Amino acid sequence: MAQNDRKLKIMYLSPIGFDSYDSIFADMIRDCKYPNSVVHVTSLSSKVGHMDNLEYRTYNGLICTELVKAIRQASLEGFDALIVGCFYDPFLLTAREISGEMVVIGPCHSSIEIALKLSNKFSVIIGQKKWEHEMHSTIKEYGYADHLASFRSVNMNVCEFQKDHDFTSNALYKAAAQAVEDDYAESVILGCTCELGFYQQIQEKLEVPVIDPSLAALKQAEQAASLKRAYGWKPSRKWSSEAPPASDIEQFGLFKEKFEFGNRIVIE
Amino acid sequence: MAQNDRKLKIMYLSPIGFDSYDSIFADMIRDCKYPNSVVHVTSLSSKVGHMDNLEYRTYNGLICTELVKAIRQASLEGFDALIVGCFYDPFLLTAREISGEMVVIGPCHSSIEIALKLSNKFSVIIGQKKWEHEMHSTIKEYGYADHLASFRSVNMNVCEFQKDHDFTSNALYKAAAQAVEDDYAESVILGCTCELGFYQQIQEKLEVPVIDPSLAALKQAEQAASLKRAYGWKPSRKWSSEAPPASDIEQFGLFKEKFEFGNRIVIE
Amino acid sequence: MAQNDRKLKIMYLSPIGFDSYDSIFADMIRDCKYPNSVVHVTSLSSKVGHMDNLEYRTYNGLICTELVKAIRQASLEGFDALIVGCFYDPFLLTAREISGEMVVIGPCHSSIEIALKLSNKFSVIIGQKKWEHEMHSTIKEYGYADHLASFRSVNMNVCEFQKDHDFTSNALYKAAAQAVEDDYAESVILGCTCELGFYQQIQEKLEVPVIDPSLAALKQAEQAASLKRAYGWKPSRKWSSEAPPASDIEQFGLFKEKFEFGNRIVIE
Amino acid sequence: MAQNDRKLKIMYLSPIGFDSYDSIFADMIRDCKYPNSVVHVTSLSSKVGHMDNLEYRTYNGLICTELVKAIRQASLEGFDALIVGCFYDPFLLTAREISGEMVVIGPCHSSIEIALKLSNKFSVIIGQKKWEHEMHSTIKEYGYADHLASFRSVNMNVCEFQKDHDFTSNALYKAAAQAVEDDYAESVILGCTCELGFYQQIQEKLEVPVIDPSLAALKQAEQAASLKRAYGWKPSRKWSSEAPPASDIEQFGLFKEKFEFGNRIVIE
Amino acid sequence: MAQNDRKLKIMYLSPIGFDSYDSIFADMIRDCKYPNSVVHVTSLSSKVGHMDNLEYRTYNGLICTELVKAIRQASLEGFDALIVGCFYDPFLLTAREISGEMVVIGPCHSSIEIALKLSNKFSVIIGQKKWEHEMHSTIKEYGYADHLASFRSVNMNVCEFQKDHDFTSNALYKAAAQAVEDDYAESVILGCTCELGFYQQIQEKLEVPVIDPSLAALKQAEQAASLKRAYGWKPSRKWSSEAPPASDIEQFGLFKEKFEFGNRIVIE
Amino acid sequence: MAQNDRKLKIMYLSPIGFDSYDSIFADMIRDCKYPNSVVHVTSLSSKVGHMDNLEYRTYNGLICTELVKAIRQASLEGFDALIVGCFYDPFLLTAREISGEMVVIGPCHSSIEIALKLSNKFSVIIGQKKWEHEMHSTIKEYGYADHLASFRSVNMNVCEFQKDHDFTSNALYKAAAQAVEDDYAESVILGCTCELGFYQQIQEKLEVPVIDPSLAALKQAEQAASLKRAYGWKPSRKWSSEAPPASDIEQFGLFKEKFEFGNRIVIE
Repeated sequence: MAQNDRKLKIMYLSPIGFDSYDSIFADMIRDCKYPNSVVHVTSLSSKVGHMDNLEYRTYNGLICTELVKAIRQASLEGFDALIVGCFYDPFLLTAREISGEMVVIGPCHSSIEIALKLSNKFSVIIGQKKWEHEMHSTIKEYGYADHLASFRSVNMNVCEFQKDHDFTSNALYKAAAQAVEDDYAESVILGCTCELGFYQQIQEKLEVPVIDPSLAALKQAEQAASLKRAYGWKPSRKWSSEAPPASDIEQFGLFKEKFEFGNRIVIE
Repeated sequence: MAQNDRKLKIMYLSPIGFDSYDSIFADMIRDCKYPNSVVHVTSLSSKVGHMDNLEYRTYNGLICTELVKAIRQASLEGFDALIVGCFYDPFLLTAREISGEMVVIGPCHSSIEIALKLSNKFSVIIGQKKWEHEMHSTIKEYGYADHLASFRSVNMNVCEFQKDHDFTSNALYKAAAQAVEDDYAESVILGCTCELGFYQQIQEKLEVPVIDPSLAALKQAEQAASLKRAYGWKPSRKWSSEAPPASDIEQFGLFKEKFEFGNRIVIE
Repeated sequence: MAQNDRKLKIMYLSPIGFDSYDSIFADMIRDCKYPNSVVHVTSLSSKVGHMDNLEYRTYNGLICTELVKAIRQASLEGFDALIVGCFYDPFLLTAREISGEMVVIGPCHSSIEIALKLSNKFSVIIGQKKWEHEMHSTIKEYGYADHLASFRSVNMNVCEFQKDHDFTSNALYKAAAQAVEDDYAESVILGCTCELGFYQQIQEKLEVPVIDPSLAALKQAEQAASLKRAYGWKPSRKWSSEAPPASDIEQFGLFKEKFEFGNRIVIE
Repeated sequence: MAQNDRKLKIMYLSPIGFDSYDSIFADMIRDCKYPNSVVHVTSLSSKVGHMDNLEYRTYNGLICTELVKAIRQASLEGFDALIVGCFYDPFLLTAREISGEMVVIGPCHSSIEIALKLSNKFSVIIGQKKWEHEMHSTIKEYGYADHLASFRSVNMNVCEFQKDHDFTSNALYKAAAQAVEDDYAESVILGCTCELGFYQQIQEKLEVPVIDPSLAALKQAEQAASLKRAYGWKPSRKWSSEAPPASDIEQFGLFKEKFEFGNRIVIE
Repeated sequence: MAQNDRKLKIMYLSPIGFDSYDSIFADMIRDCKYPNSVVHVTSLSSKVGHMDNLEYRTYNGLICTELVKAIRQASLEGFDALIVGCFYDPFLLTAREISGEMVVIGPCHSSIEIALKLSNKFSVIIGQKKWEHEMHSTIKEYGYADHLASFRSVNMNVCEFQKDHDFTSNALYKAAAQAVEDDYAESVILGCTCELGFYQQIQEKLEVPVIDPSLAALKQAEQAASLKRAYGWKPSRKWSSEAPPASDIEQFGLFKEKFEFGNRIVIE
Repeated sequence: MAQNDRKLKIMYLSPIGFDSYDSIFADMIRDCKYPNSVVHVTSLSSKVGHMDNLEYRTYNGLICTELVKAIRQASLEGFDALIVGCFYDPFLLTAREISGEMVVIGPCHSSIEIALKLSNKFSVIIGQKKWEHEMHSTIKEYGYADHLASFRSVNMNVCEFQKDHDFTSNALYKAAAQAVEDDYAESVILGCTCELGFYQQIQEKLEVPVIDPSLAALKQAEQAASLKRAYGWKPSRKWSSEAPPASDIEQFGLFKEKFEFGNRIVIE
């Protein structure tokens, strides 16, 4: 996979100060990563509060400062790519600005790229109607709004998805089937990284592509890391992609303390 | 102005941990506020770093957590309206989600509303080309992109605008004149709250409306505060405007410490 | 409210040759205007026909010539701001071209500005499906179409709204509730100036902002008048905002007879 | 051309109270109309003022009431199609609402339809920059904005086009050539009905289609009239195309006096 | 109709290698063409396969090479205009590039032009949901998407429309009525050239314009041919409309064999 | 890279009947493919003519029938992914419809996906202005138009790029530098698969990402093939992605002869 001898270094960062999901993502990554990737799974520190979700813009906002610091730290540690592990792709452009030579990947963006190679219209299965506005804005900004068939909500909170797997699987399947039959979706994206572990069953029953966003992001991160290494395709630093100058960072006293991630699960 | 006996309570918050600009805004507000407004001028605490600008998305990101806390604190203190004092209108929708019954106002949004009552096309005079992408995205999301004639950059940083008033005035005038003559702008918006103190001169010379964003925001904030008091026009809390539930806030341990603003200048 | 000693001079003009509604608007204005505003409430002369509504484009067209003359006359009389009192905002750009130093305000535009400070999506409650196309075109041109949740029609004509208040209130409430529950509106705008007197009840029951367009327009007119006086923010006369030259007006024999408004109710 | 024995009845209406251009249009129509068309060339009555152009929205507004009455009168007189003879296509949707079974045609709309059968991008040659905003809005509303290469202004007023033919021809050619070479137009539309008599010379020199708007409108009107007669393709009266009910017209006292056109030139 | 003595020469080309529909179109054309048109009705040769429809993009693709050759051949034979007789308007821009001085007309484009002179919103009645995506893309590219009320499918295949006329008429009527009543269409377009022979009945019952696409295309082709002859309004060959140079055609060995159409029905 | 034992099977298909470029692509692929990919490099048969480019829509059209047959044949041969090797991404949706379980990849689409992970705005360096319209339409349909900074043409034909490498490199560099400096591109895409072999030099000098479209497509194809194998993410066959039914193919006599590719270079 790579023309280099050292392995690709990837971080999967849950942008919340709550690490109970880490092992779930780690299990998936252990199964699915390429052999020459090393993936660190971690969360923000608990300074941001113990939210188990980012369902509200407020929660997004509360983790933002730590996220910026985390991104910069990961880039200093030489990660090739980093996944901001939430389907809102929170602060993706911000993260990309301060990421140095590291490529930053969002699950929403990654999932859509895969869905649109396999179909012309996709739907997103979300937990709460509340999420739709922010996600829709993001999808519009990416340019994919004309390919969006619908959002479908299962009326569940993030923390509920992993509680009763049969219940969740059933709820997601039902919403996905409605998206296909009533909204004319040709593929389905599970619109929360915590909707992990369900895509296969639904895909088999529905017979359309069903995209898991964490897995999609992992694969796009590995691809981006590989391309960066092999062909020098690393982040632009021109115009809107320009990073803060070192002199400013010095003068403003930014990033003085080393950022500490939460516990890391390292998957070699 | 109001049917209530107590005065309208407004906060002008510079979303940076740097309070040297506060007195400049305070002077303008003292001159321009309505008699029945009380305005508190303040900044974030210095925890966010000593940035004197938000020119980079990174700096926006670094202040975000404190901003969210500040918004909530202001709402608890009973402010009727709050101005996020930066032309990026940083995190406006986030701030509005957590603002309780307080209306949150952005200088960019406020300026455009005024410009488009007086003309069909406006230009924005910015300091650096770098700012354009983020501002343009914001203006698109508001819906005003078709009314935007152009951005024109004067190649100055935020901290330079107040250093040599003649130089700045000249640079802004020149860019504004080009916007009118070459880009067919019919009005001009000064695209940084630190471009304060220049609109009148330029307006007189150019003979088109020239909008000062801090002043625009002050006036829209007073208006919003007044309407809230008189007619109950306070923030919606439905759908995408829903606020985090108290139970979550409790459970996640959010907002436990009282947020402390920087020094306040209180203008009665 | 103003730094000038003389009062702000505002006209509320019903753009129809039918003055029976004037007293209804006058009552609202008497209750709601700022102390330093003087508001003249009036209609066009009866030359335009005795229409009690502008539901058809034809009726809009029939009042247009008189409206242009009225706008110019009001500007000559020194009004600071004028409200074209119909939710179609008929001929707003035309009126603004010939308004001299007077700011022209539309109820639709005003209402949306208020709604979007309090919510991310609004619906408009109209009388007849027929109205939707013209209003939708207007909202698209303003740039607000992406924030529009829906139109909801109550199947009533303009002249019916003020006949049986309980019936109307009930009909408007029902449509507004459907807009919120089924179309995911976060705020509601009453889409006809004759839907006057109902916003409060509905707002209390629905618990989302409900905007009355006449009141919204009054407040925006007072604001615009005040800003014009204090900061010189008066209409641009560049490019598409250029007014007809005096020489043309002379040569073409335009505006030779003084325009006579209908009866005026003057509210000091 | 028609399956009926009586001739198609078309009106070319200059929407101004100034009939000096009528003979110019009449000459063109005499040369170009189909044998089975009868065309009446006329103007509005002088009540609207003696404007020789509609360059300002104000002038558009001043003729609107008479225009509405004229449209209705023409429809009562049994015209099959009517051309509103100005490139602004002023009040086209209004005219279509009250036109009964008569089809209303606009020169701008007609010209674009022809240009886009022959090319993928067109430019419009206008007299004054002032015209652009209104025309651009119209073209956006039609849906053709993505096919518009540019507007190019020759800095002439409407009344000047027919004064010195060589001068005008030269100015139009120069602007058209720039549109093709610099703006990548593939066809050119002369953006004023008074730019009559020049398309052929320019077309020969430029070797791209150059569309004359009066001629385009004549041909589309004849086509529309013919289709109406032969296939019953007459105006819809559903939804936004619904016409005012007769009972309203009666009740409001509209159209009581017979509308009198200016002098007519009848071309059989 | 024309200032030339020889008749307008038009081709109606069914872009499939299946000529059983030819006589149906020929019958309509015989009834409806102008006296001075000669129309050749034909299909592609059977090399493309014996498809009786183009419902799939694959079928479109399979006929494309022959279509290009056919277009060029028709242009060499001196046709003034050619109709690509399928509502997908397949490869319209491609056909226009290689058409020399011949104007190429599409039934979809033609129908919309007629519908939008008579109404503000149209619906399209299609056979299968499958067709919608491709047609919608085409309509977006034309610029008409904002005027589209809906697609309505009757769940029939192309080859079924002409089998049981009562059944088809009924199905089309029902869908059209739903488009008008539920989707607020003001006019209806029959979205397949094989929906021929039904517009009149439906139009009479529905009382809105119902457009037959083959007939619409015939009329637009005659109009385009006539304008080309009389005014030199022939295809642009600039920029994106540039045709392949003769030297390339020679060098690449293109179009070496004369293209043979299927049988032709010639209607004088 | 894969959890399967057999290698990923990829086809790089030049959609022209001219195989002189094959070895150039083969050389790049040999250097850059992942070890577990097998790539077949080939062209269409010479039936389509000996075009060395697809610069004109006509040439696109001429290869379309063969392309459809080739796609189906490749899918029958068990390829996991296929690249249509031209930056126009010709007939991408068509190819995807008939591709069975094979994923079809376009160089334009692939390049943009990579560029937008590394920057917010990209420019495309094309050979001729002529290409722009078709590519721009494609980019609009993908949804990426708002991220497009500009097209820049070097005024060269496809066949010239590989003739004098220094000349080409220089021309591409100059255009790319203008795109960055004057059009504010943050990354650059080489807009022709024959602009192969230049990205590295330009990237080093310009210090922004420069994307080679063939290489981008190769990598996206390998990724897509891998995801298909591992997670079942294969093409949707619902709604607009539905493939022609076998019964139709049988009945219409399609694909009866086995499609023969040109010579293949097989890279293991």
